[in-house]
Amino acid sequence: MGHSKKNAAKHPGWKKPPLEALRAPAGLDLATFDRASTPGWKHGKQAGEDMVTRHAAELSELQERLFAEGRSGGSRSVLLVLQGMDTAGKGGIVRHVVGLVDPQGVAHRSFGVPTPEEARHHYLWRIRRSLPRPGYIGVFDRSHYEDVLVARVDGLVPPEVWEKRYDEINRFEERVVEAGTRIVKVALLLSPEEQRARLLERLDRPDKYWKYNPGDVDSRLKWPAYQEAYQAVLDRTNTEVAPWYAVPADRKWFARLAVSELLLDALRGFDLGWPPADFDVDAERRRLLAT
Amino acid sequence: MGHSKKNAAKHPGWKKPPLEALRAPAGLDLATFDRASTPGWKHGKQAGEDMVTRHAAELSELQERLFAEGRSGGSRSVLLVLQGMDTAGKGGIVRHVVGLVDPQGVAHRSFGVPTPEEARHHYLWRIRRSLPRPGYIGVFDRSHYEDVLVARVDGLVPPEVWEKRYDEINRFEERVVEAGTRIVKVALLLSPEEQRARLLERLDRPDKYWKYNPGDVDSRLKWPAYQEAYQAVLDRTNTEVAPWYAVPADRKWFARLAVSELLLDALRGFDLGWPPADFDVDAERRRLLAT
Repeated sequence: MGHSKKNAAKHPGWKKPPLEALRAPAGLDLATFDRASTPGWKHGKQAGEDMVTRHAAELSELQERLFAEGRSGGSRSVLLVLQGMDTAGKGGIVRHVVGLVDPQGVAHRSFGVPTPEEARHHYLWRIRRSLPRPGYIGVFDRSHYEDVLVARVDGLVPPEVWEKRYDEINRFEERVVEAGTRIVKVALLLSPEEQRARLLERLDRPDKYWKYNPGDVDSRLKWPAYQEAYQAVLDRTNTEVAPWYAVPADRKWFARLAVSELLLDALRGFDLGWPPADFDVDAERRRLLAT
Repeated sequence: MGHSKKNAAKHPGWKKPPLEALRAPAGLDLATFDRASTPGWKHGKQAGEDMVTRHAAELSELQERLFAEGRSGGSRSVLLVLQGMDTAGKGGIVRHVVGLVDPQGVAHRSFGVPTPEEARHHYLWRIRRSLPRPGYIGVFDRSHYEDVLVARVDGLVPPEVWEKRYDEINRFEERVVEAGTRIVKVALLLSPEEQRARLLERLDRPDKYWKYNPGDVDSRLKWPAYQEAYQAVLDRTNTEVAPWYAVPADRKWFARLAVSELLLDALRGFDLGWPPADFDVDAERRRLLAT
């Protein structure tokens, strides 16, 4: 009761805490998942956009506290993992949600086709060296999950290789969490109709041509295989320490709202204070006044 | 005439274009530089803050165009170099000015005491590998100039070593500019009185303790030596290809306004369009509609 009330107070506009509404349940079936829904949210678009704006100040303050802690010997950090088909809205989330906090405290990394150097290493090599340092909010635009998504769909490695990766990823993430990083894994789930509309828009607007890649249509032609691969990701890597959030992505405003809530929850969960002085405040004041 | 009018139209609120008002003139004497002044700006604080807000949309759009160009085979980028004594406002500029654009297009790097690995290399090694890739706005919070500032003041290397660095830095920056990077070097010039006030504020506010470092007072005690070192930087590295801007930093709002104008000028100077399609738009539309 008290707990519910507290959660309701913390999450105005939500029927239930967004963490609960968005957490991918065991057995989630992607085939029937409604990609235009707004689970848990009581209102519509305008209220959703306003809420993201309202979150800015708190997100910004908590990010600064986390950064301060990192500078003062702390080991905690946040890692936001964004996965989704092309046009699912990863970039917009970075711009409109992550962009609300101080860029000094953000470590953003996009993972595309491995570079020749990356390809010479284990697939987790480039991930490990991109993990956020203490105090940072790391953002992965695509991630190690590509190594069980595109790698599986396109047969970049044989099945016996990608098969082993699910458990390996779980063990890897467990160690990352133990080291102090809170991992927020977001699956942005878009409908094929909405993807077509977004790709068509890129073809209709010369200021969007640069975002269009003919390869996106090739991936789109493999939609069922990708859904199967995403289903396997949700079935096999939705762990207690690093759970997946299933975010319907047909409404951009909802996906942004959802991620702002998830990020806020992750930061609130740290219960961040300000680091105490590790020097004698009065003595320093006297030293300074003498200059 | 036409040119002046055009500049005036582009720079409302300024008596002359900020680039001219802020460009460090040959022979600039730091001893007499007014660190509380607002050169070129017609109005006060509120109008200055409003102007930064007004710049957000254009900064954001130009940054996206630059990023698009970088993705489409372009080689251009911007590098904002922020130098100044402790509390000069480098962090606030990143938060309030650089924070106006999409964090995906920003590569921010702070340079502190070299790590053991960095210390084993030439002082430009860590700089070279932190240069912005095509399409990015790179931000250096401190930079290679520390190697002729703290290195000189604290005698970290003998004079014959740092003496050679000025020319070496000029040659290095020339190559960086030739490769397509526009370098915007900002010297944030703070008065010692304002620095004392800002350091005292950090000691008065528990949410600012983490920003206070007793070493800042040690550096402060070497103020004249630092001013001499900054003077040498301005005298010897204020080149045509990578000029210095002397920004009075006692008023935070003015320093932020100034940097927003300089960044905007750098981006406007690229005359950025949107990259043309490198695919057949109609053919792609047909392919897509067939899916």
